[in-house]
Amino acid sequence: MKQHLAGRGVRVCPSPALYPYYAGENQITVVVDILRATSAICAALYNGVKSVIPVSTVEQALGFKGPEIIYAAERNGQVVEGFSYGNSPLSYINNSEVIGKTLVLSTTNGTQAIEIAKNNGPLVIGAFSNLHVLADFLIRERQEDVLVLCAGWKNKFNLEDTLFAGALSEILIQNGYGLETDADTTLMSIYLYNQSRADLLTFLMNSSHQNRLKHLNLKEDIDWCLQYDTAPVIPLLREKHLIHYQSA
Amino acid sequence: MKQHLAGRGVRVCPSPALYPYYAGENQITVVVDILRATSAICAALYNGVKSVIPVSTVEQALGFKGPEIIYAAERNGQVVEGFSYGNSPLSYINNSEVIGKTLVLSTTNGTQAIEIAKNNGPLVIGAFSNLHVLADFLIRERQEDVLVLCAGWKNKFNLEDTLFAGALSEILIQNGYGLETDADTTLMSIYLYNQSRADLLTFLMNSSHQNRLKHLNLKEDIDWCLQYDTAPVIPLLREKHLIHYQSA
Repeated sequence: MKQHLAGRGVRVCPSPALYPYYAGENQITVVVDILRATSAICAALYNGVKSVIPVSTVEQALGFKGPEIIYAAERNGQVVEGFSYGNSPLSYINNSEVIGKTLVLSTTNGTQAIEIAKNNGPLVIGAFSNLHVLADFLIRERQEDVLVLCAGWKNKFNLEDTLFAGALSEILIQNGYGLETDADTTLMSIYLYNQSRADLLTFLMNSSHQNRLKHLNLKEDIDWCLQYDTAPVIPLLREKHLIHYQSA
Repeated sequence: MKQHLAGRGVRVCPSPALYPYYAGENQITVVVDILRATSAICAALYNGVKSVIPVSTVEQALGFKGPEIIYAAERNGQVVEGFSYGNSPLSYINNSEVIGKTLVLSTTNGTQAIEIAKNNGPLVIGAFSNLHVLADFLIRERQEDVLVLCAGWKNKFNLEDTLFAGALSEILIQNGYGLETDADTTLMSIYLYNQSRADLLTFLMNSSHQNRLKHLNLKEDIDWCLQYDTAPVIPLLREKHLIHYQSA
């Protein structure tokens, strides 16, 4: 694999707690939380939600008022009491109630990763659901280096975000992006992705996170979150809102 | 792979900056910095050094005085000016000058990882150089959970420490240790180790860290650091000193 000498580079930050060590300048951040926040954001925008406002806390979520607003909050894999939605992507698909609405979303890890990175350059949302359209957008329309920021699980790593990071990094490198110096995480992600790509679900069976989610009866969600290009949108942060960016 | 339900567990902390999220109670910490601090500590103790005092700063190192003391300090892969030794394991092998001496050692990453963990239970040093004797010691003589703390590179991950973490974790799991919940890093390390174990050196060729070290002309050191069981000692921290622990 070539070294990053000139042009655009890609690096992977595997935990929000490591963001200060991986963040750079002139960078576009791709926030990823495969199970399930960023998969859900893609699903929502692709299925008619007008915009998503990611917030850190449940209190912040409730601070947004209006007839066109719907609320979603998840903690530890479950919908917060009193909220209509959590971070299940399936709840936004073929659901006429969400069309045209603004979704205010607070989740355990995903929205907090957005919070950390949002003031350092442009920010988009990544998931297997939008992998190829996102890669095309980065390659064709952006000049910045790419930082893939994995939301992880309470500042720990998780496999599924790492696998997505590997999938995206591999495409970018195949399109001329260089490996950033001191970013072994990029290589690790690509190695792990290539070991697992034939069957992501089976590979993740041994993941502790996966086992935890299995107990919550989320198999349908997980199956959906590991499929490619089921919600080909580019959620781009504009002020407080993630909107579905469309090329000119 | 079985889940950790009872008995001893193993988990991998891939960066000192993540230590607060991975550290637990009733735990023995294995600090690893393959290139090259912990490999050098094993080499030194196996080749006659009486004890190693790991310190964070060059100033602290110089604070220790005495005729039986030798000093080593490394920053960014090179011996600090004015010091006789850095963290090259080879410099301690077949070297009569070091026999019976106390080695005061400060390195970029390794000794700082020791600093972080040293007050939370017992601490030992791990490297490919002592892999199997260390695993036997943990399995047969210790009742604690094992935390493998990778020194990384300035709070970023590196591949070589992760591969060692995978090698040690695999042995422990084969001997009845469980996977800790929420520790996908353990699985990732094992997957990466199994992908690379046939030829660790070639696997690391693409590592940015490795490329950086290559420029410093350290090929002999790296070859040595990736060999198994070349310095079968158990460096155990007792007060300020890492000593060669020997079973009763």
